[in-house]
Amino acid sequence: MKTLTAYIHEAQMNKRAIAHFNVANSDMLMSIFHGAQEVSEECGEKIPVLIGVTEGERDAFGVTQIVDYITSLRNEHDYPIFVNADHTYSVERACEAIDAGFDMVIYDGANISHEENLKNTQQVVAYRNEVNPECLIEAEFGFIGSGSNIKDTLPDHVSEETMTDPNEAQRFVQDTGIDALAPSVGNVHGMVKSGNPALNPGRVRAILEETHIPLVLHGGSGSTDEDFLKVIQAGISIIHISTELRVLFRKGIEESFQAHNAELAPYRYFKEAKKALKNKAKERIKLFWAYK
Amino acid sequence: MKTLTAYIHEAQMNKRAIAHFNVANSDMLMSIFHGAQEVSEECGEKIPVLIGVTEGERDAFGVTQIVDYITSLRNEHDYPIFVNADHTYSVERACEAIDAGFDMVIYDGANISHEENLKNTQQVVAYRNEVNPECLIEAEFGFIGSGSNIKDTLPDHVSEETMTDPNEAQRFVQDTGIDALAPSVGNVHGMVKSGNPALNPGRVRAILEETHIPLVLHGGSGSTDEDFLKVIQAGISIIHISTELRVLFRKGIEESFQAHNAELAPYRYFKEAKKALKNKAKERIKLFWAYK
Repeated sequence: MKTLTAYIHEAQMNKRAIAHFNVANSDMLMSIFHGAQEVSEECGEKIPVLIGVTEGERDAFGVTQIVDYITSLRNEHDYPIFVNADHTYSVERACEAIDAGFDMVIYDGANISHEENLKNTQQVVAYRNEVNPECLIEAEFGFIGSGSNIKDTLPDHVSEETMTDPNEAQRFVQDTGIDALAPSVGNVHGMVKSGNPALNPGRVRAILEETHIPLVLHGGSGSTDEDFLKVIQAGISIIHISTELRVLFRKGIEESFQAHNAELAPYRYFKEAKKALKNKAKERIKLFWAYK
Repeated sequence: MKTLTAYIHEAQMNKRAIAHFNVANSDMLMSIFHGAQEVSEECGEKIPVLIGVTEGERDAFGVTQIVDYITSLRNEHDYPIFVNADHTYSVERACEAIDAGFDMVIYDGANISHEENLKNTQQVVAYRNEVNPECLIEAEFGFIGSGSNIKDTLPDHVSEETMTDPNEAQRFVQDTGIDALAPSVGNVHGMVKSGNPALNPGRVRAILEETHIPLVLHGGSGSTDEDFLKVIQAGISIIHISTELRVLFRKGIEESFQAHNAELAPYRYFKEAKKALKNKAKERIKLFWAYK
């Protein structure tokens, strides 16, 4: 089995992106996994998929348990499924995830001062070097809002001016030793009712040219297919999808409750929601990895 | 860590029963696990708990994955949590569960002819002996209905006459070599609206005296505390709870959807349902194991 690093390299070489899906429970996880298996079957190659769990999501599974779950799927099915500790807000929790064996950990210091962000990211990288050198460290640099939810309007401070500056990003990468960067390039966490802002492939290209490390697009839900392909061409290697999965999951359960008034077996009343997630995952994986 | 066999023996010696809870996803599982941890904390001893997954439930997790999940919890927390392949209707699927490393497998031939049930159970036991001698095999003998749901009336064929006959049970145990038996002793799968029938401790005692193997009460949901204690005193060592968990889980999610109209994070809108399950698990574990 190739490592996540090798798959990211492959994505960069071929102008593809690895789909990253957030999950909060075994039903969401298995829907994504089955979707990935089905697309791979259709495309005749095992397409890598990255599972993300925020602090709340990983606590719902158990921190060690979600790693063991993914490892179990990867080993049994010889399938390139990896797990990322998404949006980790403290050094302590980032180190916990490194200890637990995550393939990737995002230390998110986007909402604290630049100095603190720098210092904390350095600490996380140092801990990784010592404990689990295989684990990739990603940092968020530049403001893209927060929360996988539906927003009435675009958050303040998301504009051309707040996009990540390529030179500042380069210095941050150099000073911290991170392996991947989540920049602000027009993206925004969550989905905006009036439509998400356009992504900026020019800025992606400029940041990549300065930093030379894999770039990750957060807040993928709500962007257009055309925009996705543009930023993949420009150098985005991983794309995060969360909000649109959450919307489908809740909607699927609600509709199932209405249609099946007396159904008590969760694996039956989750069926529609799981199918919707599986189909969304297939659609995204196809677009990001197998579009050409 | 003591084995499940050792804990069952301890239950028999001390007239206690191990609580067996069915789960269909990571949220239900973790609610039960946290409940067990809390009761253990209160009681000052680590009380064993058995997690059951029917064919539909284990498919929802992944068959190997639910075993790895429980193993991960057991190892990380040094906690006696075990996993049972509940109601397995074919020899093939029973063997699959033995291969996957379940601590216990129930081959359920209650709805086929006696001859077929005997032959299939023997096959499952033989496979276990060869592949995984640590795994316990349980069989169901005597009619107790089926389905963890709410029934308007008591199913036909559940009556004093259809209770398990102690001598027939003894022959079945001897002919098959099973390790545990789920008899019909007034219990019924699911919950009956007008109230579940009374359990019959005299019959439990008579079956135990003939078979000398651990007895398991299925269809525990809906019985009274008094009835539970009577059959535990009479020799029941494991009690299955499923329907009442399913009722609480669905109810909890429905209420949360109503109260939090725009909430999209599953780990937030499952919170109430998980709390209800945790409390029910605590109540049952206390009653079955720590009542004296």
